[in-house]
Amino acid sequence: MGLYPVDVIGDNVVPRLREAFSGLPSGIRELVFLHFDYTGRPEAPLEAGKLYRAALTVAWDRAMGGDGSRALHAAVAVELVHNASLLHDDLIDGDRVRRGREPVWVQRGPGAGVLAGDALFFLAVQELNAAGFPLNTYGVAELTAAVQRMVEGEWADTQVPQDVGAYMSMCDGKTGALIGAACVLGGLTAGVTDHSLEQVRAFGLHVGAAFQITDDLLDLWGDPERTGKPHRGDLVHGRTSYPLLAALGAGHGASAVLRSLLVPGAASRAGAADRCAELIEEAGGRAAAEHQATHHLEQALKVLKEVCPDGPGKDVLTTIAHRAVQRSA
Amino acid sequence: MGLYPVDVIGDNVVPRLREAFSGLPSGIRELVFLHFDYTGRPEAPLEAGKLYRAALTVAWDRAMGGDGSRALHAAVAVELVHNASLLHDDLIDGDRVRRGREPVWVQRGPGAGVLAGDALFFLAVQELNAAGFPLNTYGVAELTAAVQRMVEGEWADTQVPQDVGAYMSMCDGKTGALIGAACVLGGLTAGVTDHSLEQVRAFGLHVGAAFQITDDLLDLWGDPERTGKPHRGDLVHGRTSYPLLAALGAGHGASAVLRSLLVPGAASRAGAADRCAELIEEAGGRAAAEHQATHHLEQALKVLKEVCPDGPGKDVLTTIAHRAVQRSA
Repeated sequence: MGLYPVDVIGDNVVPRLREAFSGLPSGIRELVFLHFDYTGRPEAPLEAGKLYRAALTVAWDRAMGGDGSRALHAAVAVELVHNASLLHDDLIDGDRVRRGREPVWVQRGPGAGVLAGDALFFLAVQELNAAGFPLNTYGVAELTAAVQRMVEGEWADTQVPQDVGAYMSMCDGKTGALIGAACVLGGLTAGVTDHSLEQVRAFGLHVGAAFQITDDLLDLWGDPERTGKPHRGDLVHGRTSYPLLAALGAGHGASAVLRSLLVPGAASRAGAADRCAELIEEAGGRAAAEHQATHHLEQALKVLKEVCPDGPGKDVLTTIAHRAVQRSA
Repeated sequence: MGLYPVDVIGDNVVPRLREAFSGLPSGIRELVFLHFDYTGRPEAPLEAGKLYRAALTVAWDRAMGGDGSRALHAAVAVELVHNASLLHDDLIDGDRVRRGREPVWVQRGPGAGVLAGDALFFLAVQELNAAGFPLNTYGVAELTAAVQRMVEGEWADTQVPQDVGAYMSMCDGKTGALIGAACVLGGLTAGVTDHSLEQVRAFGLHVGAAFQITDDLLDLWGDPERTGKPHRGDLVHGRTSYPLLAALGAGHGASAVLRSLLVPGAASRAGAADRCAELIEEAGGRAAAEHQATHHLEQALKVLKEVCPDGPGKDVLTTIAHRAVQRSA
């Protein structure tokens, strides 16, 4: 079994993404192709990242008894929203590397990044609207509400949360909302309509928290060759993270030294980011983050046990949940 | 009768906009309030511009026999999309004045402009999705398709069209698509389902063309006190416009002089923009633009005569169409 179980995610998501692009006007489509590193040829490869959210949608659909047909549209819609948010976030954060390449806003200007993101956001709504009931009604309601929470989380992120509490609240929006919606959409396409959808969402929020904290850990101690992002970019760009906030709040001797190094621009000086990473580890920030990620994974698995019938679908969801934490990219 | 007939647009659009805002998370809501210059108090005024598109939606609904109840939601959705596009466009174009004030991206940073726009785009979809049939299905399809064409037009605009043909094609997307959709949505809420919807759209495209060319004329020869935008901002920022392209393509002696002045940044030197405006007029660009705006108004009125039943609704649409050209803001 690879990073994501091919029998769940199938070969269907990327072909359906390619089909969805054909609905875009030609100028914007070219920018979208650039984002996905896609030539536009029918069988050409496409850099769509891990498709983690799509896998969750398809897996929840299967686990709750769906046949996968509508779930594919929901999975594609969720990935389109995710990629739209990357296009906008890279511009907002001033990030110059994504998936090992320059983002659209660097290659073609800030306007290109904004407009390509807008197009993908609306393509996601079109994908759900064209997929019939329940995606064109409940599905659109679910996804649009998730985007509002995601946007709020992204705004909160630009305001730099000052402690782990504020950070986790930001993270529930920025990362959790869409991952939660990805799960709920899979439940919806399988025909789930009762209160158990809220448990499906709770699973997604916990997975999202584990996922984001793991992202933070990978930024500090991952292999940039595999993440496709600059090493310690969060520190260099003055962004906050769970390990950093946990270290600063630890009251350890290293916490104070760390704080003194976090003057604007300091971490971008050669060596400063590495020194900060050492201090974060010394103050216990790395261990706290790993503990917190594991905690959320365990909570997700607990909810899964309650809400999901036993079977191969549940096993796949268990695997995907573990991948939130056990990954290198 | 004021700028827009109060018996069509009513007092309902602004109150419903205020209600729609309440669905936004608090951080983003604050940015949206800033955009609308709104304090958040229930009865406080709100700077929502001319509500031109909302008026078209409500007027088409009435003219085709609707009762106005669903049309209000469609009208609000269209205005939300329009305002989202302003938030993004002001950032993309680097515009520092909108409705006589600094745009959100200037007041709170580029990220605020991007994210507040994203939130309004999705609020528009939420408004339609919550309004029941046909807005939650056909209405969402209509609006999302219009946004794709609008985004394509905005991208084409950043690529600076080089002749009036390319300019009008850009304009059909940037301005016409949403105005066309505003009209079609009014037809939809009135229960129109046949091919006459395409005539309703054609009316909107012609009105949109007349509207955009008039915007261009107001930029050059309007009163900045009334437009709320800097005088001759298009020239100063190196943006193209119908009068400019018509003048450059006229083969007049003034066309060559004008071209020699249009080196990057030249028009921002004191006096240069005024001199360019004189040359545009001398080369016939102003007259050509006025003629073209009048032509599109006449085409719109011709379509209106064919598709719209006689009655007060038709009279109101006639008035609104004329306002595309006869206005100072």
